[in-house]
Amino acid sequence: MTHSPSYSSRPPSKPNDEDDEEDYFDYFFDTPGSEPGTLSIDEDATPSQIVLIDYTEEKVTRKLNLTPDDCLTYLETDSVSWIDIQGLGSEPILRDMGRVCHLHPLLLEDVVNVPQRPKVQDYNEHLLITVQMVMPTPDEEGFISEQVGFVLGEHYLLTFQEEPEQDCFNPVRDRIRANKGKVRKTGADYLAYVLIDAIIDNFFPVLEDYGERVELLEDEVVTHPTRHTLEQIYDVRRELLALRRSIWPLRNVINTLIRDNNALINNDVQLYFRDCYDHVIQLLDIVETYRELASGLMDVYLSSISNKMNEIVNFLTVISTIFIPLTFIAGVYGMNFKNMPELDWQWGYFACWGVMIVIALSLLLLFWKRGWFENFYSLKKRN
Amino acid sequence: MTHSPSYSSRPPSKPNDEDDEEDYFDYFFDTPGSEPGTLSIDEDATPSQIVLIDYTEEKVTRKLNLTPDDCLTYLETDSVSWIDIQGLGSEPILRDMGRVCHLHPLLLEDVVNVPQRPKVQDYNEHLLITVQMVMPTPDEEGFISEQVGFVLGEHYLLTFQEEPEQDCFNPVRDRIRANKGKVRKTGADYLAYVLIDAIIDNFFPVLEDYGERVELLEDEVVTHPTRHTLEQIYDVRRELLALRRSIWPLRNVINTLIRDNNALINNDVQLYFRDCYDHVIQLLDIVETYRELASGLMDVYLSSISNKMNEIVNFLTVISTIFIPLTFIAGVYGMNFKNMPELDWQWGYFACWGVMIVIALSLLLLFWKRGWFENFYSLKKRN
Amino acid sequence: MTHSPSYSSRPPSKPNDEDDEEDYFDYFFDTPGSEPGTLSIDEDATPSQIVLIDYTEEKVTRKLNLTPDDCLTYLETDSVSWIDIQGLGSEPILRDMGRVCHLHPLLLEDVVNVPQRPKVQDYNEHLLITVQMVMPTPDEEGFISEQVGFVLGEHYLLTFQEEPEQDCFNPVRDRIRANKGKVRKTGADYLAYVLIDAIIDNFFPVLEDYGERVELLEDEVVTHPTRHTLEQIYDVRRELLALRRSIWPLRNVINTLIRDNNALINNDVQLYFRDCYDHVIQLLDIVETYRELASGLMDVYLSSISNKMNEIVNFLTVISTIFIPLTFIAGVYGMNFKNMPELDWQWGYFACWGVMIVIALSLLLLFWKRGWFENFYSLKKRN
Amino acid sequence: MTHSPSYSSRPPSKPNDEDDEEDYFDYFFDTPGSEPGTLSIDEDATPSQIVLIDYTEEKVTRKLNLTPDDCLTYLETDSVSWIDIQGLGSEPILRDMGRVCHLHPLLLEDVVNVPQRPKVQDYNEHLLITVQMVMPTPDEEGFISEQVGFVLGEHYLLTFQEEPEQDCFNPVRDRIRANKGKVRKTGADYLAYVLIDAIIDNFFPVLEDYGERVELLEDEVVTHPTRHTLEQIYDVRRELLALRRSIWPLRNVINTLIRDNNALINNDVQLYFRDCYDHVIQLLDIVETYRELASGLMDVYLSSISNKMNEIVNFLTVISTIFIPLTFIAGVYGMNFKNMPELDWQWGYFACWGVMIVIALSLLLLFWKRGWFENFYSLKKRN
Amino acid sequence: MTHSPSYSSRPPSKPNDEDDEEDYFDYFFDTPGSEPGTLSIDEDATPSQIVLIDYTEEKVTRKLNLTPDDCLTYLETDSVSWIDIQGLGSEPILRDMGRVCHLHPLLLEDVVNVPQRPKVQDYNEHLLITVQMVMPTPDEEGFISEQVGFVLGEHYLLTFQEEPEQDCFNPVRDRIRANKGKVRKTGADYLAYVLIDAIIDNFFPVLEDYGERVELLEDEVVTHPTRHTLEQIYDVRRELLALRRSIWPLRNVINTLIRDNNALINNDVQLYFRDCYDHVIQLLDIVETYRELASGLMDVYLSSISNKMNEIVNFLTVISTIFIPLTFIAGVYGMNFKNMPELDWQWGYFACWGVMIVIALSLLLLFWKRGWFENFYSLKKRN
Repeated sequence: MTHSPSYSSRPPSKPNDEDDEEDYFDYFFDTPGSEPGTLSIDEDATPSQIVLIDYTEEKVTRKLNLTPDDCLTYLETDSVSWIDIQGLGSEPILRDMGRVCHLHPLLLEDVVNVPQRPKVQDYNEHLLITVQMVMPTPDEEGFISEQVGFVLGEHYLLTFQEEPEQDCFNPVRDRIRANKGKVRKTGADYLAYVLIDAIIDNFFPVLEDYGERVELLEDEVVTHPTRHTLEQIYDVRRELLALRRSIWPLRNVINTLIRDNNALINNDVQLYFRDCYDHVIQLLDIVETYRELASGLMDVYLSSISNKMNEIVNFLTVISTIFIPLTFIAGVYGMNFKNMPELDWQWGYFACWGVMIVIALSLLLLFWKRGWFENFYSLKKRN
Repeated sequence: MTHSPSYSSRPPSKPNDEDDEEDYFDYFFDTPGSEPGTLSIDEDATPSQIVLIDYTEEKVTRKLNLTPDDCLTYLETDSVSWIDIQGLGSEPILRDMGRVCHLHPLLLEDVVNVPQRPKVQDYNEHLLITVQMVMPTPDEEGFISEQVGFVLGEHYLLTFQEEPEQDCFNPVRDRIRANKGKVRKTGADYLAYVLIDAIIDNFFPVLEDYGERVELLEDEVVTHPTRHTLEQIYDVRRELLALRRSIWPLRNVINTLIRDNNALINNDVQLYFRDCYDHVIQLLDIVETYRELASGLMDVYLSSISNKMNEIVNFLTVISTIFIPLTFIAGVYGMNFKNMPELDWQWGYFACWGVMIVIALSLLLLFWKRGWFENFYSLKKRN
Repeated sequence: MTHSPSYSSRPPSKPNDEDDEEDYFDYFFDTPGSEPGTLSIDEDATPSQIVLIDYTEEKVTRKLNLTPDDCLTYLETDSVSWIDIQGLGSEPILRDMGRVCHLHPLLLEDVVNVPQRPKVQDYNEHLLITVQMVMPTPDEEGFISEQVGFVLGEHYLLTFQEEPEQDCFNPVRDRIRANKGKVRKTGADYLAYVLIDAIIDNFFPVLEDYGERVELLEDEVVTHPTRHTLEQIYDVRRELLALRRSIWPLRNVINTLIRDNNALINNDVQLYFRDCYDHVIQLLDIVETYRELASGLMDVYLSSISNKMNEIVNFLTVISTIFIPLTFIAGVYGMNFKNMPELDWQWGYFACWGVMIVIALSLLLLFWKRGWFENFYSLKKRN
Repeated sequence: MTHSPSYSSRPPSKPNDEDDEEDYFDYFFDTPGSEPGTLSIDEDATPSQIVLIDYTEEKVTRKLNLTPDDCLTYLETDSVSWIDIQGLGSEPILRDMGRVCHLHPLLLEDVVNVPQRPKVQDYNEHLLITVQMVMPTPDEEGFISEQVGFVLGEHYLLTFQEEPEQDCFNPVRDRIRANKGKVRKTGADYLAYVLIDAIIDNFFPVLEDYGERVELLEDEVVTHPTRHTLEQIYDVRRELLALRRSIWPLRNVINTLIRDNNALINNDVQLYFRDCYDHVIQLLDIVETYRELASGLMDVYLSSISNKMNEIVNFLTVISTIFIPLTFIAGVYGMNFKNMPELDWQWGYFACWGVMIVIALSLLLLFWKRGWFENFYSLKKRN
Repeated sequence: MTHSPSYSSRPPSKPNDEDDEEDYFDYFFDTPGSEPGTLSIDEDATPSQIVLIDYTEEKVTRKLNLTPDDCLTYLETDSVSWIDIQGLGSEPILRDMGRVCHLHPLLLEDVVNVPQRPKVQDYNEHLLITVQMVMPTPDEEGFISEQVGFVLGEHYLLTFQEEPEQDCFNPVRDRIRANKGKVRKTGADYLAYVLIDAIIDNFFPVLEDYGERVELLEDEVVTHPTRHTLEQIYDVRRELLALRRSIWPLRNVINTLIRDNNALINNDVQLYFRDCYDHVIQLLDIVETYRELASGLMDVYLSSISNKMNEIVNFLTVISTIFIPLTFIAGVYGMNFKNMPELDWQWGYFACWGVMIVIALSLLLLFWKRGWFENFYSLKKRN
């Protein structure tokens, strides 16, 4: 029962939370050599609290701050009991919950030691589904992600969330309360579908943000490529990679739910999961598209920088190569030799200017013929 | 029935339509947590109107502006009824149509909430096929795309289009009216084939345009690589990526129609779909080829820019390194030291010129031996 | 029967034939919405002529300029009839041929509307095989390609070629005339094998040319990278991509012929096709190898250009940084201040030279220690 | 029995151990043409010593420095015997061990001739499992790796390690001694699982280090890209490639253990291996993610360097192009022509200054309009 | 029986053997249109000679310079006859050998027309195995490769080698002579295994060389990237590509030998081939690893060159921007205006120096703050 360092994906529970970005790639791992089934509770983890929603088509009961043993009464009835465990910080509550619902130690380990790779595991009496929930951060770019563990039983659904305050389940709670749609008329499996569907739907606005960021970068990268642009391109690529890591196993999760005939999931509900699958495929499609675009942006950035350098060097070359010979001529007639016939000529100075102007004009003509002034103008107009 | 923000692929229905490019990657998504089966009608969507073409081998009837209930009479006969719903803006008409034809709510959702990923779904009584139709834009580069939903029944075919004015079905309408070819002698399934074939054939001229743009860029990128070239290469890559996203799932759609023995599709018609499949494979082949070419262009661009820079810097170096030592010498004899014996020599000035000419010629010889003037000439001729 | 714009791969039949390169990626497509089975005859297409070679083990008959109906007599006998239709410009002849041999309209469309993707299609009575034939162009780099359509029947083989004058079948014609090898002793299926084998063998010398071009470029890219090198690398990549596009579907064609037990192809001949398959795999292997090499060349080009730039800039920097401080010193003592004590020193001028020489030598020593002269020498020797 | 040069992955046993990095890619290979079954003992290999832990649920025996024949007594009992052979330097001990346990010569070759590719091989009486164990190096970056060979028999488990002092099995030894968890209650197969699980768990902290190194490099590459950064990026890529080479075959090893029903592995233990499989998949996932990030860093590095160059050249251009014309003007009025009217003007000098200031200001205005000072500031602030 | 140009991979038999590198990618192809079964004997091919080793467990006979008919006596006995045909230049000997052993014409073509893609082909009475043998070149970098064709019969094994003097079979010959190991106790199939195993083992030292070359380049590319480094990286990539082309089909060859139950290969020997398969997989693994490393080196090269350029340009910029303003000031006071008040000041010259020193120091301070001297030092220390 060692308190091993846990690697949660939530900012509050990380010591070095000044560096938000790195959260996207966290993962849980056991202390090497620890006994299988060990629960690793992070010190900063939010204390667990249990929220129960118990409903039949006729009525809904909602209870806060229950103990696991309080839940027993609800679990034994035929009504659908959604037991939402919010926060994974209280080991006794989690262990009690495991005892009350006869959860296998490995199952409990998988929902508590977060984050895990999304997966489905069949424990006969229960079906364990772990998925990654992402939420846009309203104040800043990026997203926060949190593991949600579903334990589906005959008449109940347990959900394990890392943080109590944020989730995307409120529309579902509203629909249960208001008895909107099919949710009150069906079983715990349909509730699981509705919640997973809400999680999947929540990926879309997050991706939409990245679509917009890529679009903004597309303009910036050609017109004003700066160091900041480069950082942003890299960040977008990194975050899309993180999103892909969440969505790709989700595809396998939903596919497993569709293909494997599980007694706990009704055939009708399986049809709804088929609809989910289409959405996940679309998500993957979008992520891959954005990734390709972002990856192409890096090439464009490099080319754009090289292009800009070209224009600057072109400008330097034009100015330098015109004045360098002229300055040399001026230098020659600045020499103090005794015997320099030109210096004594009446119109020597003006002849010198004439020569210099001829040289300058010839060079300008040469540059103009070579099209070097095109760059020059483009530099002016677009930079 | 919330009016959620809809993400249509048609420019008119987008607020920020000054930025046309981003349309290519739009996709529809539900408001997270919304009930499955919700129709999301965009405020800017075109009002729906129904155009019916009802035909047997002997006669053709064409009716405009029918109501869904008007269609009932035609649906009940054995003649083939093509009900073309143009515009997805009128929820009552769409819902009525659903009621009249017994469309499943999820089916209706899939044809109305556009754009979706192209797919085939079997609803026993109907077969739903959604595909992406692309049309070249006559005035500018690029293309516009629109989802077309086909609902194939026993004696009827419903098509759902986003916009009434543009489609590629006129040659088919002409063939029905003129009784040209097999179309009047066969069922609704052949009509579906003919329409899908028209959509597939329409991809070719769009791709042809990209072939020409790539060809133009191939020349430009080596001879006159500018910032505009870079933008265009990126745009071509982006738009080909969008086209690929439309064509790739189309391949699965046609493949499903060929493989799955569906009661609604005749064996003879399945053979025709096999021909379609060849075309889609060819489309994919072309898209991939152009994508590879466009991707190679980016490398060429970068190399070409570097090459040009090389030539410019080469020029600068030749001019600078010749005049810098000469200017130094001129500077030396411009010094005002009292005791500078050379200044008093009779031929000092001319000796100085001699030394400077020797230095310049030696440097020119050195550069010539090193082949630096090759670049010089190439710069002149090709730039 | 519209004269739609046809996209032939042969230069003579293209309006803009000043741009030879783009031929490699042509493909045929129907006018969108045209009836399936339409023949699209290009105005510039060569008029069709029929060459018949009819043989048994005992005797060979060769007839030129037959009409399709003339062929009937030969088709009805048990001797093997090779009917070679050269040129696809005469619609009546093609249609008559179709009528005489009972060709399916879609089959006729596939051999006439060129170029198509290589494929095999079984029409029970006939087997349609379309492949791409490439021929080296003797006068210039590159190759020309032409579709050859094979229609294999019980005792006859029809071949449809775009151009009469060029093909790679002459050695086969000689072997038939001279009764060399097995060809006269076997059926039409072996003839098909022999012709396809000749087409496959013809790819090798074309690829060999690319091997040599890549080898030449390998040297050039490191020693003399110019704009022309870049163009050539891109061209080689593009043309290898085009070759790959012809060979890849050929692999499927041969594979289909081997796997599918077709009544028209004898088991013995299938063994020979297995040998063909090995050759096609080897072709693909070679194309992929050259493509990888050519793609690596682009990286080398960019690095080589950067390297050369480095050397030039290095040279400029050495010259500039040595003379800039010296010129400054000369400038200082060129100033006209009244009170400049150094100017009046007896050995001031020589002291000044001394200081300048010390500075120059120190800088040279510094550069030498930093190894900058290595580049200098390499620039001299190799450029 | 030749003493062929052996290629061990452990630093101490390598002659050129001053070059630590290259260890990651070592592999064993036979002297070409040597008889299969030859043991290749490296001269520097650590002498073998045998550590036996024999346990039942009731008691544990631990013996050091046994001879293979001493082990026989323990092997014959029903208690689980873990015979840990540490060091592969003593051929007689290894051969005796082979004789005592009836090991196949090829099996012995596979555990002694290290390193091999991780694999599972079934020799009926035994199951051979070879895996790669990695350990973080405490003093420096990187990791050391060592092959561990497992020979699983009915009641015994042989482990062959290259080095005695380092392994990650101590927590397991403690759990056996303290009778913690299930290990004392189960057979040799569960012991094998526990040890392999410890090896897999040990990969995580090693990968964690790379995650941190990538994160550090992400900052460095944009703000202070130096030659050292480049070296580090390459090293991280190389070492991740090496890790991937160890983990990828491990996936096949575990997968084989799960799928193949082997009499030596209990069904219950197979379930535990399924858990291992999840961890290996996660490892692969992490390695691939870091590899993609590290590979992206190389692009960022190049772009960042180009960007920095741009800023420097921009600075040089601004300074040069302002002063070059001014210096030219100063040069002109430094000429010593007799007849230079401007020189005699009363306010000539001040007019000259005026002209120079106007030119300088115009150029500054031009540069400011073109946004060149943005780079200038960014150069100041961030560099 | 035409003497078509043959494309052998051995340097001596090539006209343009001054260019050694291109050998790696040679391949054989028929003269287009030639009859299948044609032997293409190269004029430069070594004359064939036959070396027979005939052995039972009791005795060994070794005969040189036999004729094919001499072999007949040995072929008819039950002893294992290894007939080693060295050199492929004598068509009569090869044809006689074919007649004596009843070799199929296509089989003979495959072993004589070298090099072919490695493959296995079953001709009932014989099994044809062709593989690529590589040997390190002692004098220079790289390797030479040669096709070896194995024809395995019931009691005999024919091997066809291109060159007599070099092969890697001597340890096997020694083991046969000295009756070491199993080889004398087993059949021709085990002999085939032993020879193929020797060929596979021979790949390892060749690859080892590339490992060392990559390691050397890793250092060079960061510290002293020169044009030569670039050439070497490209060469290593090219040669590894060639090795991969030999090893990849070898994998299929061994896999076919393991999977297909062939009467000519004993089950016991199949187990040994399984061991071979492990080695080939390891070879592929190593080749791919080196290829990835070499490909990464190209990126590092480009970055390293850019980095070096950065440092040089940085240096140039520091020197230039310090002296350019100073030289301008010196120029100003070198002007010859009549009325220049500063010139007449008592301390004007010294004030001028003061101003210049202040400017220089300010610029140095600016550069130091911007960290430009870091590059400066790194340039000094490492270059």
